[in-house]
Amino acid sequence: MRAAVARAGGITVEDVADPVPAEGQVLVAALACGICGSDLHMLDIMGTLGPDGPSLVFGHEFCAEVLDHGPGAARRFAPGTRVCAVPYATGPDGPELIGYSTRFPGGFAERLVVDAERLVAVPDHLPTEHAALTEPLAVGVHAVATARLTPGAPALVVGCGPIGLAVVAVLKARGHGPIVAVDFSPARRAHAERLGADVVVDPSDQSPYERWTQLGAEALLPSPLLDASVGPRPPASVVYECVGVPGVLQQVIDGAPLHAHVVVVGVCTQPDTIQPATAITKELSLDFVFAYRAAEFAEALRLLADGAVDPSSFVTDSVGLDGVDNAFARLRTPDDQVKVIVRPG
Amino acid sequence: MRAAVARAGGITVEDVADPVPAEGQVLVAALACGICGSDLHMLDIMGTLGPDGPSLVFGHEFCAEVLDHGPGAARRFAPGTRVCAVPYATGPDGPELIGYSTRFPGGFAERLVVDAERLVAVPDHLPTEHAALTEPLAVGVHAVATARLTPGAPALVVGCGPIGLAVVAVLKARGHGPIVAVDFSPARRAHAERLGADVVVDPSDQSPYERWTQLGAEALLPSPLLDASVGPRPPASVVYECVGVPGVLQQVIDGAPLHAHVVVVGVCTQPDTIQPATAITKELSLDFVFAYRAAEFAEALRLLADGAVDPSSFVTDSVGLDGVDNAFARLRTPDDQVKVIVRPG
Repeated sequence: MRAAVARAGGITVEDVADPVPAEGQVLVAALACGICGSDLHMLDIMGTLGPDGPSLVFGHEFCAEVLDHGPGAARRFAPGTRVCAVPYATGPDGPELIGYSTRFPGGFAERLVVDAERLVAVPDHLPTEHAALTEPLAVGVHAVATARLTPGAPALVVGCGPIGLAVVAVLKARGHGPIVAVDFSPARRAHAERLGADVVVDPSDQSPYERWTQLGAEALLPSPLLDASVGPRPPASVVYECVGVPGVLQQVIDGAPLHAHVVVVGVCTQPDTIQPATAITKELSLDFVFAYRAAEFAEALRLLADGAVDPSSFVTDSVGLDGVDNAFARLRTPDDQVKVIVRPG
Repeated sequence: MRAAVARAGGITVEDVADPVPAEGQVLVAALACGICGSDLHMLDIMGTLGPDGPSLVFGHEFCAEVLDHGPGAARRFAPGTRVCAVPYATGPDGPELIGYSTRFPGGFAERLVVDAERLVAVPDHLPTEHAALTEPLAVGVHAVATARLTPGAPALVVGCGPIGLAVVAVLKARGHGPIVAVDFSPARRAHAERLGADVVVDPSDQSPYERWTQLGAEALLPSPLLDASVGPRPPASVVYECVGVPGVLQQVIDGAPLHAHVVVVGVCTQPDTIQPATAITKELSLDFVFAYRAAEFAEALRLLADGAVDPSSFVTDSVGLDGVDNAFARLRTPDDQVKVIVRPG
């Protein structure tokens, strides 16, 4: 089959061996599959390993069509059914992440195998490209579920890439707000507004933390020592760190008011330096969140199918396998791109 | 009055002006006052400011005797009553921390002023030196109240200085456990055992995280993505970081199991480097906590008065004002010292 193969130096379309579904697995045809920021990170890492490093077929944000079942796989969906899936396939060493495993190529190929138990059927009326947004939207569902949100308290979303936008969209769908979204890019701020941000801030114009506190995320007390309450305190204000670049976490710590709850969603893969004393005197709470759970993945698909989240502000481009390498290059300067969908067919 | 005055270079006993209680304030005689690690930090900072920097009279962990009342101060306690207090005094610019304010000298002096509203009476049967432990113990009360502890889940306390020991003592008083306490110093480990640690670990002998997971603080799942539960997850395991030295937070992040709740109590005053990606893939939660609230201060005094916490394992030495400078020097190599009490009288 044809696949976009990533190795040190770039991504080329090649003929590779067809995947064969093992016990409990399903063979599916990839219909649409989003490019994730983690794919760009991984390509960078592969670059440091040189030409002798492994090659990978990325793609874990897929909508696919059931083709065939492996031995003993539950036949939950007939061939032809469109499905999404938490991107895991179980090999002899346990579950492996599809798209980052040499054993389990991802959705930037014509076909892939998935654990049968992880499949979720896509409702007929939901376009394939929009169903492919289930995976990144599930990250937003999880991040919002993790935060102990106070009703009516303003939520600050720092960074309006795909993850930040997913958080904005889920906050809106859940009725939280006001939502303050921050990004240097005017295009991304416009996407955030369409997805439900009540206020957008260009940090080169105004401090987002100042704008946030104007909306009510104020420090309630000059010091925790002057607080007369008893027991754990529900944090008044939540900020979502959706950038994942060194230095941003400390900017959030510096800007956040007393007792703020910081949900770290952006994956910073480099060492990062913080000033713990600042976080301590403000009594900040940092929750690092990762991906989502199976129930949250299914919930993300429901939000898309029910129209609670508008997918059109996410998808900014669509390419075939031949366009993957170029799409990665364009996503490195992501001024106007949010989510590029690959159509392997 | 006589006071131990700290400035760049060290601490000397001098005659200073007597404090005068302003409106709403009470004049008290310092009976006993503990030396805090923050005092050592502050002396270091003053050293960097040079001889032209300010001088301070430290001492915020005091037990004192009521002498006189300022204008309009509530006469809640008669002269002669022994009291403790959340160490704030209100000046023209608002509340200031006693002992770190040039306006409000602390308890390493014969007399000091305190806001009348913050006073708490010491029960007659509680020795003065033990009542002076209220302030550091309140830090433990607050840290334990902050953590969402699962009954029966093992708590790991990293560092058995005064703060770590306060956490151990309050965990024990509250019925939590098993408690695993970690320190390189045999003397400190012995103190932790006397205060209620069920297991003590010398990290040069064994990984405390390994010991901790043996006791049940296990990673429940290989990855959050394989978790089928819905909604916020109560963290299974709590670790208290009570060291506050660069590098220790990342050691905790590296050692902690999935979904662990890290309560950062030790005040690291220098920049610290962490690997956010590790915290993310483990979905760690970091709560930075600071000091305590007024109700927790009163609760700490109750724990001491009721005998729920044994004070004798905290106090390791007692000095007069003349001995303060030398006591600071000895606390820099704190192999056997926990809490040194200054008796200014």
